Amino acid sequence: MSERPSPQVFAPGAPRVIVAGATGFAGALAAHVLWRHPRFELAAVTGRSEVGRRIDELYPRYRVPMTIEQFDVERLEGIDAAVVAYPHAAAAPTVGALRELGARVVDLSADFRLASLATYESWYGAHPRPDLLGEAVYGLTELHRERISAAAIVANPGCYPTASLLALAPLARAGLLADVVIDAKQGISGAGRAFDETTHLSMAGENILPYKVAAHRHTPEIEEQLGLLGAELAVQFQAHLVPLDQGEMASCYVTPTRVVAAEELRELFATAYDREPFVEVVDAPPGVREVRETNYCRIFAASDEHTGKLLVFSAIDNLWKGTSSQAVQNLNVMFSLPETEGLL
Amino acid sequence: MSERPSPQVFAPGAPRVIVAGATGFAGALAAHVLWRHPRFELAAVTGRSEVGRRIDELYPRYRVPMTIEQFDVERLEGIDAAVVAYPHAAAAPTVGALRELGARVVDLSADFRLASLATYESWYGAHPRPDLLGEAVYGLTELHRERISAAAIVANPGCYPTASLLALAPLARAGLLADVVIDAKQGISGAGRAFDETTHLSMAGENILPYKVAAHRHTPEIEEQLGLLGAELAVQFQAHLVPLDQGEMASCYVTPTRVVAAEELRELFATAYDREPFVEVVDAPPGVREVRETNYCRIFAASDEHTGKLLVFSAIDNLWKGTSSQAVQNLNVMFSLPETEGLL
Amino acid sequence: MSERPSPQVFAPGAPRVIVAGATGFAGALAAHVLWRHPRFELAAVTGRSEVGRRIDELYPRYRVPMTIEQFDVERLEGIDAAVVAYPHAAAAPTVGALRELGARVVDLSADFRLASLATYESWYGAHPRPDLLGEAVYGLTELHRERISAAAIVANPGCYPTASLLALAPLARAGLLADVVIDAKQGISGAGRAFDETTHLSMAGENILPYKVAAHRHTPEIEEQLGLLGAELAVQFQAHLVPLDQGEMASCYVTPTRVVAAEELRELFATAYDREPFVEVVDAPPGVREVRETNYCRIFAASDEHTGKLLVFSAIDNLWKGTSSQAVQNLNVMFSLPETEGLL
Amino acid sequence: MSERPSPQVFAPGAPRVIVAGATGFAGALAAHVLWRHPRFELAAVTGRSEVGRRIDELYPRYRVPMTIEQFDVERLEGIDAAVVAYPHAAAAPTVGALRELGARVVDLSADFRLASLATYESWYGAHPRPDLLGEAVYGLTELHRERISAAAIVANPGCYPTASLLALAPLARAGLLADVVIDAKQGISGAGRAFDETTHLSMAGENILPYKVAAHRHTPEIEEQLGLLGAELAVQFQAHLVPLDQGEMASCYVTPTRVVAAEELRELFATAYDREPFVEVVDAPPGVREVRETNYCRIFAASDEHTGKLLVFSAIDNLWKGTSSQAVQNLNVMFSLPETEGLL
Repeated sequence: MSERPSPQVFAPGAPRVIVAGATGFAGALAAHVLWRHPRFELAAVTGRSEVGRRIDELYPRYRVPMTIEQFDVERLEGIDAAVVAYPHAAAAPTVGALRELGARVVDLSADFRLASLATYESWYGAHPRPDLLGEAVYGLTELHRERISAAAIVANPGCYPTASLLALAPLARAGLLADVVIDAKQGISGAGRAFDETTHLSMAGENILPYKVAAHRHTPEIEEQLGLLGAELAVQFQAHLVPLDQGEMASCYVTPTRVVAAEELRELFATAYDREPFVEVVDAPPGVREVRETNYCRIFAASDEHTGKLLVFSAIDNLWKGTSSQAVQNLNVMFSLPETEGLL
Repeated sequence: MSERPSPQVFAPGAPRVIVAGATGFAGALAAHVLWRHPRFELAAVTGRSEVGRRIDELYPRYRVPMTIEQFDVERLEGIDAAVVAYPHAAAAPTVGALRELGARVVDLSADFRLASLATYESWYGAHPRPDLLGEAVYGLTELHRERISAAAIVANPGCYPTASLLALAPLARAGLLADVVIDAKQGISGAGRAFDETTHLSMAGENILPYKVAAHRHTPEIEEQLGLLGAELAVQFQAHLVPLDQGEMASCYVTPTRVVAAEELRELFATAYDREPFVEVVDAPPGVREVRETNYCRIFAASDEHTGKLLVFSAIDNLWKGTSSQAVQNLNVMFSLPETEGLL
Repeated sequence: MSERPSPQVFAPGAPRVIVAGATGFAGALAAHVLWRHPRFELAAVTGRSEVGRRIDELYPRYRVPMTIEQFDVERLEGIDAAVVAYPHAAAAPTVGALRELGARVVDLSADFRLASLATYESWYGAHPRPDLLGEAVYGLTELHRERISAAAIVANPGCYPTASLLALAPLARAGLLADVVIDAKQGISGAGRAFDETTHLSMAGENILPYKVAAHRHTPEIEEQLGLLGAELAVQFQAHLVPLDQGEMASCYVTPTRVVAAEELRELFATAYDREPFVEVVDAPPGVREVRETNYCRIFAASDEHTGKLLVFSAIDNLWKGTSSQAVQNLNVMFSLPETEGLL
Repeated sequence: MSERPSPQVFAPGAPRVIVAGATGFAGALAAHVLWRHPRFELAAVTGRSEVGRRIDELYPRYRVPMTIEQFDVERLEGIDAAVVAYPHAAAAPTVGALRELGARVVDLSADFRLASLATYESWYGAHPRPDLLGEAVYGLTELHRERISAAAIVANPGCYPTASLLALAPLARAGLLADVVIDAKQGISGAGRAFDETTHLSMAGENILPYKVAAHRHTPEIEEQLGLLGAELAVQFQAHLVPLDQGEMASCYVTPTRVVAAEELRELFATAYDREPFVEVVDAPPGVREVRETNYCRIFAASDEHTGKLLVFSAIDNLWKGTSSQAVQNLNVMFSLPETEGLL
């Protein structure tokens, strides 16, 4: 391309942020959002591969003319924060290195999402940096905004827990969860930059595919957070791939602990979210198109008289609110910026 | 197109079948399958609109060079059977007229699916021909093969009940259903030839949309059939549109009445389906691509130790096994032909 | 939805703009872009249908909480400009009414694109307001920026001419066009809010469809503009629908008037576009994903030694640069704002 | 899956055919078509990888319960024919080994498509078995049926040449080709089982991408065949990927050597194809959906008075008529079976 890199525009004295692991879908999008953000300086992008290539070469739709560098702490002196987009287990050591530099970190991996070390180890094996667990706050902004604002490490939630917890939190707090089934559907970008049978258009197209049946790693994260809200229960979570790019729907089927009238249900969600800038409670089932490439979560709750169950549908963009734009929402909170800055 | 209509090839003395309502997705596909069938003569195709146009003009991919006629009982003397593809309530009078001609009927509408007139009327209003209800047999071939073989009217199941009941029947018979959530996903062809927001590619594409929340008409049909198998319960059913053409997945979450070991679960499904020509019990989650444009239903059942629930995933092509090819499967049974004739 | 309309933020004294015809794809997107624009006030949105409904109800992904009004000149006193998104022939009278109010207009229809009244009438019939033709400037910003800045009426180009002319202009100016074939492919949004066989996902999906063969109305617009650049010739233009939402590719095959070396070709495009903020000349074939939901046009030009032809590929988003964001680009020019304001 | 492999049904004494290279898209589909064919025995399927896995495991939608074997001439004694689906250059030695067994071969690679060794070598490098070139016949059935019926080696055409040559042959024979531009669009299955940026749904979806600009290997094959029909010229061929699975459209823009009236054009195509079982000349632009999963080619030709050019649109399924079902069409011809056997 003709060399006319758009100048990054940010306020003087803006915090300097890097993205570590900017070659995957999540890291590249975080770089894209930060590049356009008026109050952060995107100081560097690093990768474990593709060093020397530019973000806008790997992802032509992201007009970020920055070159992928090796991750090298020597060159990162003076940065204020980092988004780490490494796979599980690979992230923790990098988070550690960044903490030693004094940088605050939003980690997109699962490494710091579980407060319970035992639960982590039963799902993922030995934890690479258990000493850092105490510094970490779970980064579902709407649930932990206060603690996030002061956190050294923010463990950004997985996309499935994001959609599921926003759907269930008002019911959990009210002590209404007796049994929960979450049937989640996600576009193919959820598989990331993996090149295989699950992402090939001739295999994933015109398909609907349940995956990881009775074995999904997101369950403990959902259960631990629901527990913090007072709901201790085993959750049935099931993921499906459907043929679109970005978008995720969590359809939640709740057997309530008691009868809940429609009006009470409406009140619960209104109270929970009417002041939230990024949660929209709507009065008809949302489609994921409505939140594509935004940080919004759209929620519709209904009560089914026939079965007595409560139904909650929660739509997000798995790469945005489900991952990278929520990371920036957390950075806004961490640096006392308006929470919507750079995200509307 | 150059006038070279492929000759229809069928055995001498083959039963003469018509398709009434051949202009919609379901009727046109029934005509396509019957046209290629070696043991039926497709004697006529009728429509309430598009009279004078050819099937292969309306649906260029179906090479059926027959012209849509007005439905006129005078001209239908001597036919042996009919597939009726009319909307609910409009079907029953036509079914009645065909019965008076002595023709046996497979009706694709909901008009004769419910044995209980009261249940029908609570969902659909007054029944146009309640006198015929007694002649009707529910046309899920795998459940009612014997009665279908002698039936005057076969009420072809809806696509959602087809996938759902095949998934749940083995558990219902074994008395295992304590609570059931069915989360169904379907391609856009499920909306038929409707031209609106739900089918426009720029609205349905890149979308996932729950619809008819807490209000789906397929519930009574599923519940009545489960009841016949011994399972009396209110079923939570929820449909979603996903961006593909043909394909349907019913993800069933069952709270069992007692603990069910994996081996017992396997046995239940093997016993139920090992001799069924069109039900494939598989040992990994099926994708709907695997059954596209076939009469197969693919089923995977699993037991989740974490929650104690049973999970059953059932994949069909909503237009084929879910509608039109199942109609032909029923016709095969009704006319004592091999059940797979014309369907492999 | 909970009533939290995002406040529209614009600078004090910003020009007041309306969108007339905001119910279709083009008008709704223009409203969306203007609503987020920091230097225009979106003063009203009108429609010939859907009066009383909100934009964000009709198009849930556009968070524009404004209500569609009847078009009523009495209520539009004091507006500075309008985007008119009416069908051909219906637009001109509305443009006239707006001119009488003193408003400057960007018209998205074909009514004012052709300078030659005779050419217009041979394609569209009698012109409703030929008296206004003299006020109109063709709104391909990159070609007519100077005149647009002072224009009373800007005739926004069609999406096909936008992609085609940006591809061909550098060659036309250099006198290199001896013969031109343009094979254009477009997503289904190009058909607009039409609900029919061309937009139904079960018909448009998994399809590639040439349309309006040897009969496309965009040809005269392309030919007239090439003529202004010195190239008088009949252009072969052919459109195809392909199964995506937004995106358009014009593949141009040029027989040149003389041999053109690769380096000369490179120079021609660099000279033409290196200072253009929204035209990106790239050195590999672009995909339309790279420009989705942006005002960019990406162009790749190559010389084929085997045939001697020049190949130019031009990618835009048909709804953005092809229609609505180009309208805002023109408004920026008309009101002496930075050309990229509100569009990056 | 439960072990109920459908029995392969074929007439006694049927020719025994193998598929060598049955793990890719083309080979697996050839196995699928042959398995259902009533007059061939599918005797074995071999692969260079995936040995020991079954076809219906690799491609669940193809119900071919055969196990991939190593290619071993010892075990192939007595076979009558083979379909070879290896990459270019890898195919020729295998074809040679099969010839030594006395088997007749349909080769899907480019190795034997070009009669001119010099042309082959300029595109592909040294030919592995130039000694066999004399035994090979170009396998576009409609052009070389007679010679195919007696051939030892049939070089199955590429999918692009299939669509292009069927579109252009009537014009070439009539001496009408002065200049030709072919703009071809293809679904993602054309890239085969490659797992990369061109096939990932999140990259290929919502995209239109020109590829191999001014460098496509199919050109010499098209030019050589047109030359045999009397048309010596350099052809401009350009391929694009569009977001669907199977389907290919060749849009051909022909500058004729003289004026051709609409009626003459109609006659030319009628004469060429009215007796062809798999070429349908239609009177409106075809969509590729109309030929999906069939061996048909649908062609529409028009004359453009404005430019004097002839436009021919040719639609095929790239995997069926473009590759694997055409291979079976050729086998039918080679073994004196009805040409449509197993293909309707």
